[in-house]
Amino acid sequence: MNEPFDAPDVIAAKRDRKRLSDEQIDWVVDAYTRDVVAPEQMSALAMAILLNGMDREEIARWTNAMIASGERMDFSGLSRPTADKHSTGGVGDKITLPLAPLVAACGVAVPQLSGRGLGHTGGTLDKLESIPGWTASLSNEAMLAQLDEVGAVICAAGSGLAPADKKLYALRDVTGTVEAIPLIASSIMSKKIAEGTGALVLDVKVGSGAFMKSEDQARELAETMVALGTDAGVTTVALLTDMSTPLGLTAGNAVEVAESVEVLAGGGPADVVELTLALAREMLSAAGKADVDPAEALADGRAMDVWRRMIAAQGGDPDAPLPEARESQVVTAPTGGTLTRLDALGVGVAAWRLGAGRSRPGEEVQAGAGVVLHAKLGDTVSEGTPLMTLHTDEPARFERALAALDGAFDIDAAGGPAPDATGIVIDRVGGRAL
Amino acid sequence: MNEPFDAPDVIAAKRDRKRLSDEQIDWVVDAYTRDVVAPEQMSALAMAILLNGMDREEIARWTNAMIASGERMDFSGLSRPTADKHSTGGVGDKITLPLAPLVAACGVAVPQLSGRGLGHTGGTLDKLESIPGWTASLSNEAMLAQLDEVGAVICAAGSGLAPADKKLYALRDVTGTVEAIPLIASSIMSKKIAEGTGALVLDVKVGSGAFMKSEDQARELAETMVALGTDAGVTTVALLTDMSTPLGLTAGNAVEVAESVEVLAGGGPADVVELTLALAREMLSAAGKADVDPAEALADGRAMDVWRRMIAAQGGDPDAPLPEARESQVVTAPTGGTLTRLDALGVGVAAWRLGAGRSRPGEEVQAGAGVVLHAKLGDTVSEGTPLMTLHTDEPARFERALAALDGAFDIDAAGGPAPDATGIVIDRVGGRAL
Repeated sequence: MNEPFDAPDVIAAKRDRKRLSDEQIDWVVDAYTRDVVAPEQMSALAMAILLNGMDREEIARWTNAMIASGERMDFSGLSRPTADKHSTGGVGDKITLPLAPLVAACGVAVPQLSGRGLGHTGGTLDKLESIPGWTASLSNEAMLAQLDEVGAVICAAGSGLAPADKKLYALRDVTGTVEAIPLIASSIMSKKIAEGTGALVLDVKVGSGAFMKSEDQARELAETMVALGTDAGVTTVALLTDMSTPLGLTAGNAVEVAESVEVLAGGGPADVVELTLALAREMLSAAGKADVDPAEALADGRAMDVWRRMIAAQGGDPDAPLPEARESQVVTAPTGGTLTRLDALGVGVAAWRLGAGRSRPGEEVQAGAGVVLHAKLGDTVSEGTPLMTLHTDEPARFERALAALDGAFDIDAAGGPAPDATGIVIDRVGGRAL
Repeated sequence: MNEPFDAPDVIAAKRDRKRLSDEQIDWVVDAYTRDVVAPEQMSALAMAILLNGMDREEIARWTNAMIASGERMDFSGLSRPTADKHSTGGVGDKITLPLAPLVAACGVAVPQLSGRGLGHTGGTLDKLESIPGWTASLSNEAMLAQLDEVGAVICAAGSGLAPADKKLYALRDVTGTVEAIPLIASSIMSKKIAEGTGALVLDVKVGSGAFMKSEDQARELAETMVALGTDAGVTTVALLTDMSTPLGLTAGNAVEVAESVEVLAGGGPADVVELTLALAREMLSAAGKADVDPAEALADGRAMDVWRRMIAAQGGDPDAPLPEARESQVVTAPTGGTLTRLDALGVGVAAWRLGAGRSRPGEEVQAGAGVVLHAKLGDTVSEGTPLMTLHTDEPARFERALAALDGAFDIDAAGGPAPDATGIVIDRVGGRAL
């Protein structure tokens, strides 16, 4: 095949801060999928994009080229509207677990294609795999059938969906090119648009435990993704939410499943409940069901019922005891006072090092590993009070986990200023106000 | 082996505009040579270096790490001092051919490890290979013996010299990362320092036909390289020379050998003679022979004598007729007047497209292909006067060569301003004034 472009010319254009043409973008994404553009060429281009940027039109074209690299799913035959949620990743972010069955219980189907954790942020599939018997792999047909019968499915994306993105994501992960807003936005949105959801709510995390450390970056990412979704005919809304401190009281796999079940049972930490309901309202509204109150479906057990059917449909036993780590160690408060800072990144890295996450793709994670917090931001603690418990199967991991927690919290003896109580949702981008 | 760093962390540091530590640089160059750092990781790092830069200390460390990746040669056993020259590449730049035997004729040994052309700039080895029988490949022992007996050798660098650079250069060539001053400087200087020359004169080209388009860039490159050489104990000087118009009257392979032989015979174009003598004086001075006048060795035939022995020592027949291209086409002046512009890049691309250069490594070049100029900058031409003749074995190549010449020259009917007559050497960096 005679190629219309040379890869070095396309790379040099972005290196020299030029706009890539539609034809260049279509070609480079397609040629990379066909192995004509080599990995070392794509990684140089990714670094040039990271440092020199792309405008909205380039990002939209890039997203479409990645969608065009594979198949598209179609949920239009379902009797219910569809809505999906995507989180940019945080520490203790188990929200998908209670959210998907909750929204399904309110009459909107949730086709949640999820990923695995890498680095300090956990992965939804890793968490669910701590449930005995549960499988993340479903055929497209099985996924559609479960959506129709149960209303919610959380599974791994099939290999046919946006293969260009899959290949590019694996490359970015090892080449220091993950943190590029054009590449993050097009990666997320290509999969969500190809997946065929009717509505999409984005949970864009801001803070130390998130990829976007500043509100400005997070807003730019949110606006970019909302524009991409809207242009593709998907009703898209984004919430900017706080990720400076862990969500809920757990960070890990089985420990997060347990906390999610508490929420579905009507309990659980207030911040997890608040964010689950906020995202559920956005999903219902985007799917045309703004009048349904998700708090009722949580309170009356309907959400828990869908959860049990959803887990069982994928081979899991919702009643089986969850795995527990073999070893644990308690971290106590060195002084008394108010917990004025509890850093998400520190806790996330600790959970990762305890074995809840992986340092390279394909590595096994420990189901029982992680961190369970006994105190949250704003709580008053006495000297020697347990602050958190670390769990792992391998006690040799405690040392590096404790190192990650060094300097990760502040206790103010004078009582200190009360932490900002403005709530977890910082802002909202796109769609109509609720 | 337990690696002290992770490649993504090193890449991310340079991506985030941080200084790389000595340990990071040593590790990444060594690990890339050992195939532990993957090509896609090194190309992302190269792009980050290109866009975010390296300071002088980082460049020096990087250069040393590339030298340490292979063997070092040693010419200290020779009875004569050594001096080498490196040109950053231009159009019609055959200077090495007359220069090496000229300097050797003046009592300084010249161990010239040369390269092949890529893109529009020609390669010294490609030019010499148009001489029937001549070979570029010599063992280190044969090279030393020839240096001792003849005084000059022009050959390909052995595979043992700076293998990290060899691997990195091939990668940069396909990933749009050639044009980075830290990488250009360290690539050139790692080879020259490992080669073991006592003195080094750098011919840093400036203008449309050079990699450095502006004098500022060229000066930065020259200063960086002079500092690297000086720190490594090599007496190093750089000349900034003009590459806005082709050097001499030929651009190609055999046609440039013929022109070089004219210079060695005491004739040849004035600019080629001027630059050859300027560089010879610098090399002699840097090698401690400032009192020797190279013009005499050119005039009295001693340089020609060394040339003949140098070619014969590498299997070449200095008396054999040079290959000629099968087809030619004359380009005539469309109007009469003064030739006020003759663009080096246009002529270089034309010669390349005629078959004198290659578009990918390993491709064969045509010995007879190239451009022969009949008029130089400042000459007065009449309408219909031949401006240049294009030579190739494949007439299908004329069209794209002519396209490269479109807009490559200006003829001013009014006589026009006389082109700047300040000479080919623009400036000098390093060393003592001559």
